Amino acid sequence: MIEGSAFVAAPLGGMTLAQLGADVIRFDDIGGGLDYQRWPLAPGGQSLFWAGMNKGKRSVSVNLRSEAGRELVTGLVAKAGNLITNFPARGWLSYERMREHRPDLVMVALTGNRDGTSEVDYTVNPATGFPLASGPRNLAEPANSLMPTWDVAMGGLTATGLLAADRHRSRTGEGQLIGLALSDVAFAMVGHLGRVAEAQLGGRDQDKDGNYLYGAFGHDFATADGRRVMVVALTSRQWNALREVTGQQKAFDQIAKATGLDLDTESGRYEGRDLIAAILRPWFGARTLAELRELFDGTGVSWGPYQTFTQLVADDPRCSEASPMWETVEHPGVGSYLMPGTPLEFSGLPRQPVRRAPLLGEHTEEVLSEVLGLTTAEIGRLEQEGTVAVSVPPDR
Amino acid sequence: MIEGSAFVAAPLGGMTLAQLGADVIRFDDIGGGLDYQRWPLAPGGQSLFWAGMNKGKRSVSVNLRSEAGRELVTGLVAKAGNLITNFPARGWLSYERMREHRPDLVMVALTGNRDGTSEVDYTVNPATGFPLASGPRNLAEPANSLMPTWDVAMGGLTATGLLAADRHRSRTGEGQLIGLALSDVAFAMVGHLGRVAEAQLGGRDQDKDGNYLYGAFGHDFATADGRRVMVVALTSRQWNALREVTGQQKAFDQIAKATGLDLDTESGRYEGRDLIAAILRPWFGARTLAELRELFDGTGVSWGPYQTFTQLVADDPRCSEASPMWETVEHPGVGSYLMPGTPLEFSGLPRQPVRRAPLLGEHTEEVLSEVLGLTTAEIGRLEQEGTVAVSVPPDR
Repeated sequence: MIEGSAFVAAPLGGMTLAQLGADVIRFDDIGGGLDYQRWPLAPGGQSLFWAGMNKGKRSVSVNLRSEAGRELVTGLVAKAGNLITNFPARGWLSYERMREHRPDLVMVALTGNRDGTSEVDYTVNPATGFPLASGPRNLAEPANSLMPTWDVAMGGLTATGLLAADRHRSRTGEGQLIGLALSDVAFAMVGHLGRVAEAQLGGRDQDKDGNYLYGAFGHDFATADGRRVMVVALTSRQWNALREVTGQQKAFDQIAKATGLDLDTESGRYEGRDLIAAILRPWFGARTLAELRELFDGTGVSWGPYQTFTQLVADDPRCSEASPMWETVEHPGVGSYLMPGTPLEFSGLPRQPVRRAPLLGEHTEEVLSEVLGLTTAEIGRLEQEGTVAVSVPPDR
Repeated sequence: MIEGSAFVAAPLGGMTLAQLGADVIRFDDIGGGLDYQRWPLAPGGQSLFWAGMNKGKRSVSVNLRSEAGRELVTGLVAKAGNLITNFPARGWLSYERMREHRPDLVMVALTGNRDGTSEVDYTVNPATGFPLASGPRNLAEPANSLMPTWDVAMGGLTATGLLAADRHRSRTGEGQLIGLALSDVAFAMVGHLGRVAEAQLGGRDQDKDGNYLYGAFGHDFATADGRRVMVVALTSRQWNALREVTGQQKAFDQIAKATGLDLDTESGRYEGRDLIAAILRPWFGARTLAELRELFDGTGVSWGPYQTFTQLVADDPRCSEASPMWETVEHPGVGSYLMPGTPLEFSGLPRQPVRRAPLLGEHTEEVLSEVLGLTTAEIGRLEQEGTVAVSVPPDR
């Protein structure tokens, strides 16, 4: 599979498939694409983002402004039969042109908007409605998401769309172009979650509500040792367990009596969330995280501690080599660190070792030779004329 | 495909495939599952969430505590050959038991944690590190995400995993169990985005930084007419366009000179973000949203307006019937509203009409008859003994 990409969605789509065993060849302009310097950075300045989003791929460096470079990419696409790109799918990179060389091509073309105009996660998120309904109650500004949620959703649909079209091709012999726009991904999800219908039928917007859950009980609490936990009572089982373990049944009964709220329903717990939180706050504040863990363990209480990124890596066994998903792998020039494989556990297929991201252009020579059958002399000529780069850039 | 599910990830995985044309049959306990009352609600009290997450599926109501009900579900799974569930995959619903009736079964079993313990989006998100790095700079508390990001990522992997295993089965004849844990999905993404490596190699945590973008320039600005926009300069093209259109080149040059920052790099723009924002703030504050739209249109400036959910529905043509992704469809007892189809546009396959969610149990009779070949008399008996419900619950 060939990938011409930058940033999150397209690289994530490709990497999801690479981690399932696909041979994914990412091509980049010589010197690196738009995401080659993307933060977070390693202490030495290399992009940990790039290294994170391209694990298990092969990298080919090509001068994309040259005719000869474009022909090489076209040749790779013709051989592979699958292309994922968020580059403008026009001209030489259009589906029509690519298809001339591979009639059953499956191509996923990612765009910002359906009309081809640009949009990134951080500009479409404000339009979804979520930032204006997020953050503390008294906050005047919207609260953006640090997580590129819509890009992540788009990466998932990219992999799904490619596999669906591959399935269709295996049955009919026919390839196709799959268009996917970031704003469609985002707004469709707003609809799936019921927010479009709510706005249309109810006509009112949700107010900012801090860390409360919408439509049931959920809130964060400080602990006696300066930590913080999130507690959720979405289901009856979770609510009953929370009442029982905290021993606050009487207090909750009194709330119910005083307010007329039925706390055995999600809506009742939502309406009474401030009172519920007020009763629970001192109980949590009198206990340490370790004590809470012991009290809640094995009960039906739905809860979890807040962790910084550093605490996640230092304290949480689910993010460590104790889990088969994680391996410590060396990325040349950067160092050894924990890298995740796919979260998908296939019972019939052994887990693949976690493969690091390539260095930029690490596989140019290998791919041109293996896939396109070029000789060493031909590759040398291409390198000399600046069409490809076969050596990796020096460490910074 | 059979789906036994509740909440976001599993229903979303099933719906993603249903919107691509799969026949997805969701089974629920009589009276509805744990997500049947989930907010947001329609003015009449029905769950718009349930209606949003189950579009295009068929619904079967079965008494899941009865032997006879479990046998019916087992029969459906045996016929369909594909099962997605986030119910506890133990006992009668275990892969081993299901497989006895369908040796090449593909089953995706979603759990909270890898060890089978429970976890929901709202409890795992605090552990990822993002809430403690989100929100205004002076905010003492963590800032939760209103969007169930990890559930959405898990829904994408559910569809991808099922299609990948289906592909494997079509080549080898072998089915398999695919395990998928929510905390793995979340923490893997923290790793993919470079945050695990950053914490491990750098050893420091990111501070809360309001609505600034991490690692480049991005910020929100108030407009002259009380609206707010987000502006991003991730790439050189975006930065150059922003400088040019706002006419602030000289001011930026002066910043660069005074601070020694190279604003032509992402890191330089990130380091200088407060100064850049201070220069741009009055410029944005002197213009209305409409003026900004006109000024930015067709330039390389990356920006977008903040909208409430209501404004998204009322004002944004991308979330309207002007887009082929959206159709106004009636949900019985609730009303007509905009429903999204799949964001995936297949060039070789016509777009499917958007299908509403079923009513609970709407297809019990149809499915038992068509798929399991039961007679009307047999179905009547099952209904009488309380094993299935063939009628839909009355409107509330």
